[in-house]
Amino acid sequence: MSKSLPKRTEDYSLWYNELVKRAGLAENSSVRGCMVIKPYGYAIWEKMQRTLDDMFKRTGHENAYFPLFVPKSLFEAEEKNAEGFAKECAVVTHYRLQNDPDKPGKLRVDPNAKLEEELIVRPTSEAIIWSTYKGWIQSYRDLPLLINQWANVVRWEMRTRLFLRTAEFLWQEGHTAHATAEEALAETRQMLDVYAQFAEEWLALPVVKGVKTENERFAGAVETYCIEGLMQDGKALQAGTSHFLGQNFAKAFDVQFQTKEGGLEHVWGTSWGVSTRLMGALVMAHSDDEGLVLPPKLAPIQVVIVPIYKAGQLDELRERIRPMQMGLIERGISVKLDDRDTERPGYKFAEWELKGVPVRIAVGMRDLEAGTVEVARRDTKEKMTLPLADIVASVDQLLADIQQNIYRRALHYREEHTTRVETYEEFKQVLDGKGGFVVAHYDGTPETEERIKDETKATIRCLALNEPEEAGICILTGRPSTRRAHFARAY
Amino acid sequence: MSKSLPKRTEDYSLWYNELVKRAGLAENSSVRGCMVIKPYGYAIWEKMQRTLDDMFKRTGHENAYFPLFVPKSLFEAEEKNAEGFAKECAVVTHYRLQNDPDKPGKLRVDPNAKLEEELIVRPTSEAIIWSTYKGWIQSYRDLPLLINQWANVVRWEMRTRLFLRTAEFLWQEGHTAHATAEEALAETRQMLDVYAQFAEEWLALPVVKGVKTENERFAGAVETYCIEGLMQDGKALQAGTSHFLGQNFAKAFDVQFQTKEGGLEHVWGTSWGVSTRLMGALVMAHSDDEGLVLPPKLAPIQVVIVPIYKAGQLDELRERIRPMQMGLIERGISVKLDDRDTERPGYKFAEWELKGVPVRIAVGMRDLEAGTVEVARRDTKEKMTLPLADIVASVDQLLADIQQNIYRRALHYREEHTTRVETYEEFKQVLDGKGGFVVAHYDGTPETEERIKDETKATIRCLALNEPEEAGICILTGRPSTRRAHFARAY
Repeated sequence: MSKSLPKRTEDYSLWYNELVKRAGLAENSSVRGCMVIKPYGYAIWEKMQRTLDDMFKRTGHENAYFPLFVPKSLFEAEEKNAEGFAKECAVVTHYRLQNDPDKPGKLRVDPNAKLEEELIVRPTSEAIIWSTYKGWIQSYRDLPLLINQWANVVRWEMRTRLFLRTAEFLWQEGHTAHATAEEALAETRQMLDVYAQFAEEWLALPVVKGVKTENERFAGAVETYCIEGLMQDGKALQAGTSHFLGQNFAKAFDVQFQTKEGGLEHVWGTSWGVSTRLMGALVMAHSDDEGLVLPPKLAPIQVVIVPIYKAGQLDELRERIRPMQMGLIERGISVKLDDRDTERPGYKFAEWELKGVPVRIAVGMRDLEAGTVEVARRDTKEKMTLPLADIVASVDQLLADIQQNIYRRALHYREEHTTRVETYEEFKQVLDGKGGFVVAHYDGTPETEERIKDETKATIRCLALNEPEEAGICILTGRPSTRRAHFARAY
Repeated sequence: MSKSLPKRTEDYSLWYNELVKRAGLAENSSVRGCMVIKPYGYAIWEKMQRTLDDMFKRTGHENAYFPLFVPKSLFEAEEKNAEGFAKECAVVTHYRLQNDPDKPGKLRVDPNAKLEEELIVRPTSEAIIWSTYKGWIQSYRDLPLLINQWANVVRWEMRTRLFLRTAEFLWQEGHTAHATAEEALAETRQMLDVYAQFAEEWLALPVVKGVKTENERFAGAVETYCIEGLMQDGKALQAGTSHFLGQNFAKAFDVQFQTKEGGLEHVWGTSWGVSTRLMGALVMAHSDDEGLVLPPKLAPIQVVIVPIYKAGQLDELRERIRPMQMGLIERGISVKLDDRDTERPGYKFAEWELKGVPVRIAVGMRDLEAGTVEVARRDTKEKMTLPLADIVASVDQLLADIQQNIYRRALHYREEHTTRVETYEEFKQVLDGKGGFVVAHYDGTPETEERIKDETKATIRCLALNEPEEAGICILTGRPSTRRAHFARAY
């Protein structure tokens, strides 16, 4: 708590890294690109997990678990998928260590323990899962198969950043199989909606729902849908994807089913995932120069009570605070009483601000006598004196207000930072100026998209689902266009 | 459902494997020694996780997440631990694949993407965690540090069996750091008690709490405590371990703290874990020749309702069953209505028996008119006709009875199969005859323990905590002994 955080306006990236570390969310580990998720960060992730898991179960999905390793031959079976991930695969080649004859007390890889076939640490699980589904699916009666997995995956990224891009990350991956393309597509869209609802109602993050272009599509998918959020530095962040796999994996792994009519057909697949990257979105969308701003629904501690006292008063004050504390807990609010006698209130205030606790209650003897407490909200930093008599209801309402306010603020920011442009000149100006989403016509070709990316570092985040078809002219080539794309620089 | 299961008395091992597969708990994957945990099996594991996680949190622990990989140099730092696991480590040596120039469309490991330092896939996380704790612990104020992790780990076992011994398995691992040896020992014992309580109250598995001998101790621990259960074939199964690590890891990773008095000391550590092996214990302790027998507290489906009807009656029957179904659900009981029109009741009965659903309710029009239903309990296969009027309360009570009965049955089995012997002759007779725990004096030396193991395949499961000190004579050497050990053949 000694130094203040870097300012967002001065070095957004440094601000983010420092905040993630100082707030106790995560830190780099001694394994290149792998992070340690600390208890405070993990507590938020657990709330995300629990919420999403409930949503998946309500939409009929069951959890299962598939191996960490994928034999190379399986990994190769769907060629586009394999090609897409080949450059970032951690590979297990040996299964034993032995004493190093040259270095007493040290170990080395036992050259006699080489695997016949290398194992890939899963970068995603389509290959291992579809090879398993072959045994699970025979008839239309086995469909739809609606499975989700919570797991760790590894993608050997060269440049990593806590939560946003790490070599190992935690995620969930849904993998479903259906009798028809329509049903699989409906599933893909349903899960996109689940993600959007979670992002907006829980993360308080407004998102654009859309479909990826061919360049940005998941390797092995026919269509990739996504939700895209906007961070406070004007960059977009992909917060979740839902893929319609067509029959690609079914064909690669020969997963066929007997239809009602007695025919034999390949099944239709989907996969969809969100990851610990959402933790990065959470930080970057709402937090400020004093620290985290957490949406109350995901905050591990929703209310912190800081007693203000003179020497010798703490025991009595603690007793007198107890009814309020218990009242809040009974209302289902998570409360922390910070009664450390080793720190001063100002220090505590700053610490809980850094950690993003939505509501802080400061209370001293004089307050209690006046029948009031001082309440501060983290999002606006507003302080108010509230009557103790109905404090539980007030705080409950305040938490709901904060959740809504954070969302509205992020929505307002996104609206302010979504610009429709007609020319390439304007496009570049907006990107270099206020940033955000730039909504522009392009001719629909991968080449144009690539050139724009090379020249401006902006990618097409998605073709937004709510963007109407509209005749226009490509900002780069002047060729005709039928719809606008959401461009942005992105994480 | 076409073939019946192998009989336990004929081939216990085959019975186990077939049951795990046919009941839909798990299956072997295409990765040697790694299993796929199927939705029904995973649903049980989720209930175990949720329950244990709540117990850990109630005892003050927080969850965190540490990397999957351990750099070889860290792995080596605590020598005994490294030595103990060296022979079963999966090792990542490369981070990229490339197109195979010799085989178009295939990939090979990119020889230019060799890691400078190999990464071990964690067989356990002490090394990576203690290297992290070094940064977290400075002062006595940072202690105790009470952390748990839910994770996958890999131990390259040569002979594997679903749930009991697999190359990859799921587990939790608690890792705590304390200011004093006494406190760390108390933590070790507390978590042993948590495990024992979970085993007995939830798995319905009576366990012997004890301490391991030096031969069987966790590599790197000063003491290993364990809970040991007895399976229906008379073999013991270690169901959980809790280790007092002394200062071994603190010294290996130089984790010191400033004491209240201003000195500098190494911290004291513990670690403790249970794994998906508990699924194996669950199956082997209670199930029978017809299938699983699940304790109601862990059963994903506690009650199955099977409608008995003539053609055309199903819709009406479904409607009339609804109030009972809803009543059970409101009571917090998980209910499945098996209204498949494609299968006959007998088939359904056998299927739910195989899957171990504790209570089955069969109900037809005539029952409803008589105001009764037919209820069958899975554990005793007893059938009874119960009045519909108070069916919810009856079923609730029945579930509690079944939980208790399964536990009592397992306890009775264990008591019948725990034999105190005085001679080596007796010892071998009991082992080869009825099996189970053989409680015998031995001289306390690793050599004697080893010889007994070589000659009989029985190991010391533990020195039971409730076994009194008692003068006696070693069954093998005739030398004096101060306490009896629990021997058994084990999984």
